[in-house]
Amino acid sequence: MKRVKLVVAYDGTAYHGWQIQPGAPTIEGELNRALGTLLNEEIRVIGASRTDAGVHALCNVAVFDTNTCIPAEKIAYALNQRLPEDIRIQASEEVTPDFHPRRCKSRKTYEYRILNTRFPLPTKRLYAHFTYVPLNIERMKQAACYLTGEHDFKSFSSAAAVVESTVRTVHQLTVEKEQDEIIIRVCGNGFLYNMVRIIAGTLMEVGRGSMEPDHIKEILEMGERSAAGPTAPACGLTLVKYEFL
Amino acid sequence: MKRVKLVVAYDGTAYHGWQIQPGAPTIEGELNRALGTLLNEEIRVIGASRTDAGVHALCNVAVFDTNTCIPAEKIAYALNQRLPEDIRIQASEEVTPDFHPRRCKSRKTYEYRILNTRFPLPTKRLYAHFTYVPLNIERMKQAACYLTGEHDFKSFSSAAAVVESTVRTVHQLTVEKEQDEIIIRVCGNGFLYNMVRIIAGTLMEVGRGSMEPDHIKEILEMGERSAAGPTAPACGLTLVKYEFL
Repeated sequence: MKRVKLVVAYDGTAYHGWQIQPGAPTIEGELNRALGTLLNEEIRVIGASRTDAGVHALCNVAVFDTNTCIPAEKIAYALNQRLPEDIRIQASEEVTPDFHPRRCKSRKTYEYRILNTRFPLPTKRLYAHFTYVPLNIERMKQAACYLTGEHDFKSFSSAAAVVESTVRTVHQLTVEKEQDEIIIRVCGNGFLYNMVRIIAGTLMEVGRGSMEPDHIKEILEMGERSAAGPTAPACGLTLVKYEFL
Repeated sequence: MKRVKLVVAYDGTAYHGWQIQPGAPTIEGELNRALGTLLNEEIRVIGASRTDAGVHALCNVAVFDTNTCIPAEKIAYALNQRLPEDIRIQASEEVTPDFHPRRCKSRKTYEYRILNTRFPLPTKRLYAHFTYVPLNIERMKQAACYLTGEHDFKSFSSAAAVVESTVRTVHQLTVEKEQDEIIIRVCGNGFLYNMVRIIAGTLMEVGRGSMEPDHIKEILEMGERSAAGPTAPACGLTLVKYEFL
């Protein structure tokens, strides 16, 4: 028996998120199915980040246990031949049997992309959220400053999830313009449910002028979901980096 | 009666190219249909560049004649509501009745994108051609030099099309690395059938080392399609700029 770690990239457009659910295509479901046919065992992967429906990833992580004699490094190649083209393993390697991707200290980086043009661009529609309302990036940068560091992010979390603590550390939060796109890049030790999308939705409110940058302080203090801006659509969000510390 | 010019962006993935054909979705067909329902007239657009199946565009151009009293500038907005989300008008304006996009002097720029990584990246699969074979960009740049300027590009044209002259001018041809992608950017006064994709396929041969950069000179001299490299796949190609001179 060995434990294998996979680095998984996917286009989330066609999936109901990472987590397996009956009757709906999910990343986890596709991985279990493809691994089952490849290894001729029943496999259940453990995912690092359970991304939502429509969210993309360049480097999510999954581990599984197997009795196969196929070398761990070769599994990426063989598995890719059995996966749909919108899911591709980027690397596979053996890890110690106690490695659990959700119990390790880690640092994740997400990018939220906003296409800020007069009209939508079809070739960007799947990977960026479009808005024609002009966004002031300087205001968004000012607002972002209030969110870096350790805070109680309760206001930036969807009510659905119950967690022990809503305190998280945002190591870095940048807002950059790249041609027609505004890219919000957030790096942190962990994120609450919908946290990055609510941060994006709130920074957009600031960018369009309907909220002052320093109002972010009050939103944090209030500790209520309704204080923050809307949850920005899933398509703009991509998990771009996953580091285990 | 007035003539209206449209700037059209599209994701070519789902289409059998620009040119209308019975029983298959095409960009031209979708434009005629949407304009017909919007303006309540039978409309036949004239396209500037009849891109192939699977090729994308940020700014193709089409014109049409109409009796509508809707101001030309407003047509973009109204038309977008009637088009599928993978086609979006970027601008609409009235032009003189003699403006014909294929008879004007123009300069077009195409980008051919190659994802050169160990494994395919799902979020790039629709807009870049993937190859895991390492490509040497310096060799590709050297080869590109032989293709700029006025040449008989007969070797870089698919036999299918019959044209008066196969002489074209490539104003600029650059090869750049942008993260994991190699971008071939070609600007010219006109292109033969499949010319950019054959240039891309040939530069890839040079990049992987199976052809010397200066062999391009001989390919041009031979004037035979079989002398050049393969036609690179459509998905990597995007029409990015269209200037009327």
